[in-house]
Parts: sequence; structure tokens; C-alpha cells
Amino acid sequence: MSADELCYAGIRELGGLFRRGALSPVDYATDLLGRVERLDKSLNAYVTVTAERALADARAAEAAIRRGDGGPLAGIPIAYKDLYATKGIRTTAGSALLADWVPDFDCTCVTRLQQAGMVMLGKLITHEFAFGIQFPGHRFPPARNPWNVDHIPGGSSSGSGAALAAGLVHGALGSDTGGSIRGPAAFCNLVGLKPTYGRVSRAGVLTLSWSLDHTGPMARTVEDCALLLQALAGHDPADPASSREPVADYAEPLGRGIRGLRVGVPRAYFLEGADAEVEKAFEQALAALRLLGAVVTDVEIPSILASWAFLAILMAEAFAYHERDVRAHPELYGDVLRERVLAGGLILGSEYVQAQRLRARLQAEMLEVLRRVDVLVTPTTPKPAPTFAVVWDPSFGFPKSNMPPFNMTGLPALAVPCGFSSQGLPLSLQIAGRPFDEATVLRVGHAYEQATEWHRRRPRI
Amino acid sequence: MSADELCYAGIRELGGLFRRGALSPVDYATDLLGRVERLDKSLNAYVTVTAERALADARAAEAAIRRGDGGPLAGIPIAYKDLYATKGIRTTAGSALLADWVPDFDCTCVTRLQQAGMVMLGKLITHEFAFGIQFPGHRFPPARNPWNVDHIPGGSSSGSGAALAAGLVHGALGSDTGGSIRGPAAFCNLVGLKPTYGRVSRAGVLTLSWSLDHTGPMARTVEDCALLLQALAGHDPADPASSREPVADYAEPLGRGIRGLRVGVPRAYFLEGADAEVEKAFEQALAALRLLGAVVTDVEIPSILASWAFLAILMAEAFAYHERDVRAHPELYGDVLRERVLAGGLILGSEYVQAQRLRARLQAEMLEVLRRVDVLVTPTTPKPAPTFAVVWDPSFGFPKSNMPPFNMTGLPALAVPCGFSSQGLPLSLQIAGRPFDEATVLRVGHAYEQATEWHRRRPRI
Repeated sequence: MSADELCYAGIRELGGLFRRGALSPVDYATDLLGRVERLDKSLNAYVTVTAERALADARAAEAAIRRGDGGPLAGIPIAYKDLYATKGIRTTAGSALLADWVPDFDCTCVTRLQQAGMVMLGKLITHEFAFGIQFPGHRFPPARNPWNVDHIPGGSSSGSGAALAAGLVHGALGSDTGGSIRGPAAFCNLVGLKPTYGRVSRAGVLTLSWSLDHTGPMARTVEDCALLLQALAGHDPADPASSREPVADYAEPLGRGIRGLRVGVPRAYFLEGADAEVEKAFEQALAALRLLGAVVTDVEIPSILASWAFLAILMAEAFAYHERDVRAHPELYGDVLRERVLAGGLILGSEYVQAQRLRARLQAEMLEVLRRVDVLVTPTTPKPAPTFAVVWDPSFGFPKSNMPPFNMTGLPALAVPCGFSSQGLPLSLQIAGRPFDEATVLRVGHAYEQATEWHRRRPRI
Repeated sequence: MSADELCYAGIRELGGLFRRGALSPVDYATDLLGRVERLDKSLNAYVTVTAERALADARAAEAAIRRGDGGPLAGIPIAYKDLYATKGIRTTAGSALLADWVPDFDCTCVTRLQQAGMVMLGKLITHEFAFGIQFPGHRFPPARNPWNVDHIPGGSSSGSGAALAAGLVHGALGSDTGGSIRGPAAFCNLVGLKPTYGRVSRAGVLTLSWSLDHTGPMARTVEDCALLLQALAGHDPADPASSREPVADYAEPLGRGIRGLRVGVPRAYFLEGADAEVEKAFEQALAALRLLGAVVTDVEIPSILASWAFLAILMAEAFAYHERDVRAHPELYGDVLRERVLAGGLILGSEYVQAQRLRARLQAEMLEVLRRVDVLVTPTTPKPAPTFAVVWDPSFGFPKSNMPPFNMTGLPALAVPCGFSSQGLPLSLQIAGRPFDEATVLRVGHAYEQATEWHRRRPRI
């Protein structure tokens, strides 16, 4: 079986072929690298392809599987957003500033997936430092959306979205400060999980905003995300924000269904500004959840508008991180990134403090609501992917987003495919849950995904 | 026995007289109110004397004691820094802005001590909003130091310090954002405890800085502080920062001694700028601890200079709190408070963020050191109380202080009497410990106090 036939296979299916000896991880990696070589020219998902490392990883995985100690991820191809430090492999952050940076260490997430036997295919393009916009002519041009190359694949984990949608990898890690895992998942018909703050290590992953950044998996199915999370989750002393909360079993409960589970719908804010098509798809998703036995009720989050305080926190922290470099090397920053970073230098300490106070109130209210319901569901984005023309227009700012509320509160939030617009662009459902209750969030996502099968659609490439 | 004879009695002694029927709480409160009336004119510790409330409380305590349900604090006179909201009693914050504010609720601390049977004598002067300096002619003139009225009694819990030192009350509550409990304790030969962040409720106590403010007890002995803490400590749902950590027994372990206990001495920073007399008294204190069986060793806190980041955090948070009022009513702010508050409006968000990052590093390092030693000891202040002439001089700024490091880290810190300067002004030892380990901090303080008996000296008034 060739990579063109298997490139959309799930991790369980592909791993089964490896473990039964029906397919060699080395042959498969070689073949998939060929597919990347052929197809990525027009998509630009990969900033660096690590063919040698992939083959070395695949040989190691093959040996481990032969010895009988290959786990569920052994031999499965993976790629990393180019904010994840990789030993001996340049890690650019999509930025001229770091274009030649070759770390001498692997970040914790890469180490953990390496130990699980995964095969690193390469590094995936990111918006510049996860915060800029790449215009034509940028040193690291943007990835294209495989569903329609005139549209963005989402950001900032744009390469992760494009590669998965095009069948150029089986799993990817993104980072999510205000939706950068869930946004590309939403725009590319994928599954993306922003875990609870502190659940997955950030050690060795470049920073955008200390208190909002999350790392997490992206894949084509909820099960694949669950398998990746299982290998990633757990305390890391190298990350000061890492939690000691015990790690749950994420894959096993997926099949249990959601009968009797309480689903809360916070309409205010989250449905404002939504396209009619998005709204319709969302209502159909609620109907599907009811059919699956869930109890769906509207809920109120009185301070939901405090979500806007996200911007003050993000910008003050981003300026704190970039201040020295942007002053020393302004010419190595893209125009939008430089402007956004410098604007962050105008946020006052008192404004930051007030934003954090609003954030605490929002957290308290969401936790209160989550005592009465098990999960919250919203559209992941109010509209499908915009065109490059839209985001390259100088009037493009920070559009309203449904994702930052869960960066503000640190709650786990999952994006799952939820249908298509009349233009054929993917739509997405966001499912959020209690702190460290990724298991329930994934279970709801899996039940919905299996009932609707939106994830089975493929883009024409 | 009259109040003039008993006004320096410990809580256990006084409570014993009440419980044995040898003294009536009502008679004693009446007599002590007379002493306040006579002596406070020159000291100005009380901003409001609550004679009616005191007698009502005393009658209730007397009845409870007769019924046999008077606890260790029943009938004991207490007074509150005028930041603690008291129902039906004006709560001024030492400020023209709140000069006529009469809360319709008691703060949690007042409720808890009321329930413990304490007798509220009144409200004690504070520096304006715990952050200003009262110049001559201020609506609420400053308290004087009973040891020498030309010197300040410390701030901002200045009235609490003056009242206790002059025998005008048996316990007082202060608040401590950068040393406002420990400083007056140090300058007035008293014991002051800043508990662990989250140990004692702040609900209903006016704010200076959300992330640095602590409430806590002041008294003349460690045992009295322990008895007050016992009644104050414990979770309060009305304070978002309140901890659910179980409450220890604070009084019982006091007598156990400190043989084998490991005492760390962080000389860098904490001894810089100290008067020779302070240094000598501190070395004598270390010798006393060794004689008591403690193992005293020097320790290093590499990032101790990060303690200066305290100012950025304090000022940004204070501006956030006061912004609206200081813009609407600048004329109701004293000159120093207004200047300090407005200066806080110049702190950038990124500076605040960097200050919080330094704070996190300082916390990690102190916790690391506290794995190897049980407590840290330092001089509480590098010099004894300055004169009013010094603090009223326009060049007076923010002097270096040994106390903010423990507001930054949230660790419990106790000030205990440690001798006198050649001018007859009190000196003080600061003892800090692990999070929520007030019991050990108090035990060390008690052993030292009982061995040295500095607390027995009285000012001439």
C-alpha cells in the first residue's frame, strides 16, 4: 500500500499495519516523504523537511516493533510547528530573526513523542512568532489551505493545518495562545485540542504570551488527538506552569457515548457575528448531540465580554518577550508583527492588572457554569476561512474570536469538523470542559464525529 | 486590678482572670477605655474609639464566659487598622475620600474575632490607604511612637503599633503589603505576623495591591499572635485568594523548643545598609538561636535583588485600584499618596509582566532554600524607626526594606523584638518560613522571645 492510499489513515489503523508486519515504517516514511515532496510545493506547509531524521526514527520504530515494544504511536509520522525546538534542526518561528537558529536540545514534547516511537517528518510553517502575518515576499511564505488555496489555512499553526488536511502527515503539534490550534483545525476540517493550561509542557517551545500559551495536538480524528495527548500529557519540571494533576486515560472512554451528558450552550458573544451558515451548522450539531442522548441547555456567562481583555494580556506579555529584540533588530521583524509587538508596549501595568482581574472573574463564572453542565459547545469560528486578500488588507485587525475565552480560563477546548459552507469551506464545533477533564471533551467530540462523519471528507489536491 | 496594672498582660493571663471570675470583662473594658482616653491624646493611635460597641461586646463575652463557652479570646480587647470594614462604624482608610464611609457589613476578620468573643475598642489610624504619608495638618494626623514621640511608629499599621506599645489594647489587626504589619512591630518592640498569602481572609479589607496584600495579627508576644491567628485562619469563600489549606494548631507547639531546627541566614541584600547596631543585635540573635539548639547556616538566594520588582507590582496594582477616584477627586488625596498613585500609572504592562516573572523566580529559589532549612532569619528593618523629620523631608522615597521579599513570595514572616539601639529604639528579628508553616515560624519566635525577654521592656509614657 502506498502513501497516497494510506495518507489519511488513522493512527490506530496505520499502527496496526506496522505491528502486524503488513507495512514497514521505513518504507512508509520514505513514501510519505515523496508525497510531501510532490504536493507541498503548492501548499507550503513544511518549512523544513527532516528526511534523514525521519528515516532514522522509522528504523528505530521498526526495530522496536519487531522487539514487541512498539506502542500505539510507534512508526507514525509526526511534524512540529516551527516554534518547537528540535535538536540539530533549525527552528525558525517563521521569523528572519531565528532563520538560522539550530537548537542544541529537543523540547519536552518532541522528546516525549520521540520516546513513543514517532517519526519526525519535519517542521511546519507558523505565522511569524505565532503573532505576525506573512505577506507575499516574506522570507517564510504562508501555507495555503488545501480546501481552497486562495484561503488561509488558519493561524498561527498554519502549516500544521495544511499538512494534515493534505495528507502530508498523521499528526502535528500546534500552539494555541488565542486559538492557533483550534483555528487551523476549524479552517481545514481537522481536530485540534487546546488542553488545560499546564497539562502539556511548553518547555522548549517559543513563547508568545506566558499566561495564555498552550501546546497541544492536531490530527484528523478525535481518537488520533487522544492518542497523541496520552503521550504528551504529564508533569514537566522544566515548565514552571506544568501541572502535577494525574493524567487520565483519554482513548479508552471514547466509545462510551454521551447519553445523559449535560451540554451547555453560551449563545451570548459566541453566536454574535456568526455567518448564517455557521449558525445553521451549529444548530444541527446541537440536534445531533441531542440525538446522541445529551441534555442540551442554554447557559449564561455574565462576564463573557471580559474575553476582550485577552488582547491587553496578550500584547503586554508579547512586548515583554520581544522588547529587547524588536528594539535591537526591528528590520528582522515583519511589518505586522513589529507593529503588534510595539503596540503592546503601550499597554499600562494597571490595564494589564485590570485585564487579569476580569480574567479571574471570567474563570470563576465558567467554573460555576461547569458545575451545572459537563461541557460547553460553541461554533469554533464565526466564519469559515477568509481569503488571503482579506487578511492582507491593511484594514485587517483582530477579528472577534470564540477561542480566546478558553485561553483566558485555561479550560480544555477541542475543535471538531462540523460541516461545510456553500463555498465548500470547513466549519467547526468547539467543545470546552472542566479543568483537566480532556477525557470528557474528547468523548463528546468523538461521539459527534462518529455520528456525523464530517471528518471523512477530503480536499481535492 | 486596674487597666494601668493589667494593660500589658498577655491574652492567656487576662483571659484566665476573666474565666476565674477575678475580673469582669465589662469593668476591664471600661477601665481600658479610660486609659485610652487619657493617654491617646499624645499618641493618636485611635482614629475612632467604639466605646458603646466595646461595652456591648464585653457584656456578651461576660455572659458567654459565665455560660462556660468563652474561648481563649473571650473578653480580650482588640482594635482594627482602619482599613478593616466595620458595620455601622466609619472606616476611613486614613483618607479624606472615605472620611465619612460607614460600611453596612463587617469584614470577615472582624466577624471571626467577634465570634471568638473579643471586645472591639476601636479603629486604629493607618497611613492614608496604607500608601501615603500624613503630613502635619492632614485630616487624620499620624500616630506617634510610644518609645519616642519624635519617631514614627512605623507604617502603615501605625496606630496598631502605637496602641499595642502603649498598652491601649491587647491585640490589633494590621495589613501588610510590603511590611506594614512587621514594620510597626519592629519599630514598637512588638510581635507582628504576616501569614502566608491566602491564610487569613482579606474580604472586606480595603485594597492596596491585590497580589501583595496580607492581613494578620499584631500583639506583644508570640503566644498572643498565635492565639489571634488561630481564630483568624481558615478558608473564606468571600476572598478569591483564600486558601483551603488545613489550619494548624499554632499555640500548642510553641513550647516544644527548637533543638535541631535548621535556621538559614540570607546575608546578601538583607544585611546591606544595616546599622552597625542592627547588625550586632542580629548576630547576637543568631548566637541565641544556636544556644537554643538550632543549626544556623548561611544560605544564598541568587535572585534576591528581584525583590526590587516589588515596586513595579505594587504601583501598577495601586494605580489600577485608585485610578477612577484619583482622577475624579484628586483633592481628596494627600500629596504623597496622589503622587505615588499617579506614578503607578507610568508602569508599563510589560514591566509588570517582567516583575511577575522575576517574582516567580524568587519564589522558586526561596522554596528551594526552604527544602534545606526550616526558617530564614534576617533583621526586620536595617535601621530603627526614623524621625518624623526624616519621613516628612521631600527627599524621602522608598527606602530599601527587608520585608517585601516575603510579600513577593507569600511566605509567612514574623517580626519579634530583638533589643534596642543606643538611642533606646526597638530593634527586630524577622523569621520567615515555608508556605502555611506559621506554626514553625511562631515556634522559633517564641523560643527566641522567651530566651531573650526583649518583649518585657515597656516604653515610658
